[in-house]
Amino acid sequence: MNVHRLTVFKAYQLLKENGIVYVKDKSGYYVRPRAAVLEQTPELTISPRGYMNNLLSRIQRVPVAYQFSQAVLDPNLLPNLYLSECAKKVFDLYPKVLSTYADVQGDVELRQSIVGYLAGIGVYVSTDELLISTGAQQAIDLLAAVMVRPLDAVLIERPTYSAAIDIFRKHRARLIPVDLSADGYDLADVEAKLSKYRPRLFYLNPTFQNPTGYTVPIQQRKQLAELAEKYRCLLVEDDPFRDIYFRQAPPPPIFTYDTEGWVVYIRGFSKYAAPGLRICAVAARKPMIAHLIRAKSLADNGSPLLNQKIFLHSFSSQRMQQHLEKLRTALYMRKRKMEDVLAPTGWEWSSPGGGFNLWVKLPPTISAAKLLEASLKHSISFVPGSICDPSVEPSPWIRLSYSYLNEVQLEEGISRLVELAESLQNM
Amino acid sequence: MNVHRLTVFKAYQLLKENGIVYVKDKSGYYVRPRAAVLEQTPELTISPRGYMNNLLSRIQRVPVAYQFSQAVLDPNLLPNLYLSECAKKVFDLYPKVLSTYADVQGDVELRQSIVGYLAGIGVYVSTDELLISTGAQQAIDLLAAVMVRPLDAVLIERPTYSAAIDIFRKHRARLIPVDLSADGYDLADVEAKLSKYRPRLFYLNPTFQNPTGYTVPIQQRKQLAELAEKYRCLLVEDDPFRDIYFRQAPPPPIFTYDTEGWVVYIRGFSKYAAPGLRICAVAARKPMIAHLIRAKSLADNGSPLLNQKIFLHSFSSQRMQQHLEKLRTALYMRKRKMEDVLAPTGWEWSSPGGGFNLWVKLPPTISAAKLLEASLKHSISFVPGSICDPSVEPSPWIRLSYSYLNEVQLEEGISRLVELAESLQNM
Repeated sequence: MNVHRLTVFKAYQLLKENGIVYVKDKSGYYVRPRAAVLEQTPELTISPRGYMNNLLSRIQRVPVAYQFSQAVLDPNLLPNLYLSECAKKVFDLYPKVLSTYADVQGDVELRQSIVGYLAGIGVYVSTDELLISTGAQQAIDLLAAVMVRPLDAVLIERPTYSAAIDIFRKHRARLIPVDLSADGYDLADVEAKLSKYRPRLFYLNPTFQNPTGYTVPIQQRKQLAELAEKYRCLLVEDDPFRDIYFRQAPPPPIFTYDTEGWVVYIRGFSKYAAPGLRICAVAARKPMIAHLIRAKSLADNGSPLLNQKIFLHSFSSQRMQQHLEKLRTALYMRKRKMEDVLAPTGWEWSSPGGGFNLWVKLPPTISAAKLLEASLKHSISFVPGSICDPSVEPSPWIRLSYSYLNEVQLEEGISRLVELAESLQNM
Repeated sequence: MNVHRLTVFKAYQLLKENGIVYVKDKSGYYVRPRAAVLEQTPELTISPRGYMNNLLSRIQRVPVAYQFSQAVLDPNLLPNLYLSECAKKVFDLYPKVLSTYADVQGDVELRQSIVGYLAGIGVYVSTDELLISTGAQQAIDLLAAVMVRPLDAVLIERPTYSAAIDIFRKHRARLIPVDLSADGYDLADVEAKLSKYRPRLFYLNPTFQNPTGYTVPIQQRKQLAELAEKYRCLLVEDDPFRDIYFRQAPPPPIFTYDTEGWVVYIRGFSKYAAPGLRICAVAARKPMIAHLIRAKSLADNGSPLLNQKIFLHSFSSQRMQQHLEKLRTALYMRKRKMEDVLAPTGWEWSSPGGGFNLWVKLPPTISAAKLLEASLKHSISFVPGSICDPSVEPSPWIRLSYSYLNEVQLEEGISRLVELAESLQNM
């Protein structure tokens, strides 16, 4: 080609860096395969909800200026320097922490500490009745693996946490929606469904629920525990937002009203206490916990020890407990800011007593799908309610998270969203 | 009962501490439920191999003086102080590492680093073609979730990693064993099985295999890649021991001979590089990696960021790479010590070129099951070969791991095991 050898070499280097060619020693350069064949593979086992889940990921992955789609805490709201100092001490306390596997069930010292924390909220368990998982999501997946066979009926709130829908679908459950309102459930409807479908379990998030922020009242909690026992249906109580309350602490977990082992309690700490550690505790009575440990051993053979030790030494500290107070105030201010900006719109919501999310009903003149499409183009994201519906029906509701942006950003972002919605009226 | 009030109070405190009773504010003490009801629950979804898995756990959990049942590195063989210093730096480099979720696919900086490491062993991938999982075990579970439907045929080595058997059974695969010898496979047999059963995948560990230590020769690797393409069977290449070789580096991964995307490469680093972090990289071509990312998002929504950053900054350091040399020597010495003590017995094995395990055939006069039973009583543990057999047949083979004990302990433990075996002859 009439060019210098070095030029050719450089060209090959460039091709190599870009992954177009690769080198075999003493042999030469070879073109890398494109490996498109698998695209033709028939019948990869894909959940039928793949599309919905991808939609959520797609929304959350768009790099927007105004992020209302992720119910994730703003890292600036955590005492990062203090957490780092705590973590550094762990290496001195446990010099071999990086060389050591944890027990499948979870570090016993951490479980002892969590036993104390749980007793403080009325959940009395022994260290044997706890399992440490990598986030609440893994806990749900393990429970589904233990409990659900294909076509088993599973009760689930409508709306609910969209990843939970995906997980139960992955396990091929038949999902039976139970409507949730600001007043809780219609318990007659719940009992009718328990009686008719004989579900294996009921997945619920009764405290500052995701996405609605609703809290199931105390009387219903007692009755749910009784219904679970009567119909031999396991209640899976997911409770990530318990500590994030604004005025008063929420009612005790349903788990506290259970006397016969029909409630499993999932207490994730990722939402606000060191999200980078992904620590979650699952409380369950004896036979169930043994099944969960076995499922955990097959899933990943135990959560990393380091994370458990760092969580142990940070979460239980006085400093973190004091910080929690500040966190509640900060989140309350953000929620108020969001509500203030939305106040003139006529959009409807029930003001949540805790959690990260506002569940807002758009007027019939605005399509949630069209608003989302336009918002993403204008660097704003939120979660459309249809993603949170186990029957995937179109919905006038949207979830706006106020946990990630500061008040200034919140005000700007929500103002723009409202403007955009008004421009789309009746389109 | 004619005792002082304080005595009653103390008695209640004791009952409370032991978990017999619990307190309800302003109400009194209540006896805690025993929650035995779930034991009567019909048809919890339990893998039919529950017993085997429990046996392995049971063996490994017995606190013995001479631990030959765990293929786990002795923490004293790792540079713990250095690792801790590396880890501490991470908190200064990423002040918000504890407050931040990682990308589901894995931290991009870590993936970039692993791309470089993999290129060094002939595995050319881009950062897009990598997923970070929590240990190799999770990677296998994710692959099974993506690929295996109930009753799908899956080829698996005999013997093999017992957790892999459990995972595929959990996904209700029909396991087709492929015998592995010190010379590799009988490829005619492999092809016959590919043709007859049309398996979805073939799970293999061709380099210093667990439990045998055998390595599949280079010529067979090439042919396997061709067979995979021909029969459209995904090869799942698990490769945790590649860096633990004694004299010469092993042949390149099967992945390097693949041109059409029919190999997924699982490179766990837990075995020797900071086991407490549980970092594993999975390399796969485009459509497959997208499925795996989705499965990972449902399993735990991403491995913790902290662990990925610590691994990034420790593993790639010159110090760790130098340490690897020392580690190889130390493990080689331990293996030699074990072989020296076993030499006079007449037991059979093929000396492995790397890895953590010696796969030993007992003479017909000694029952592996009886030897195990007696050994546990004498504070010695090992893995009976039957656990590693996908068809669960009795086996004269046992796995002895030389990775966990130092040479002095190894010599004592193996000498005692041999004595015990001799005392059991023909029993």
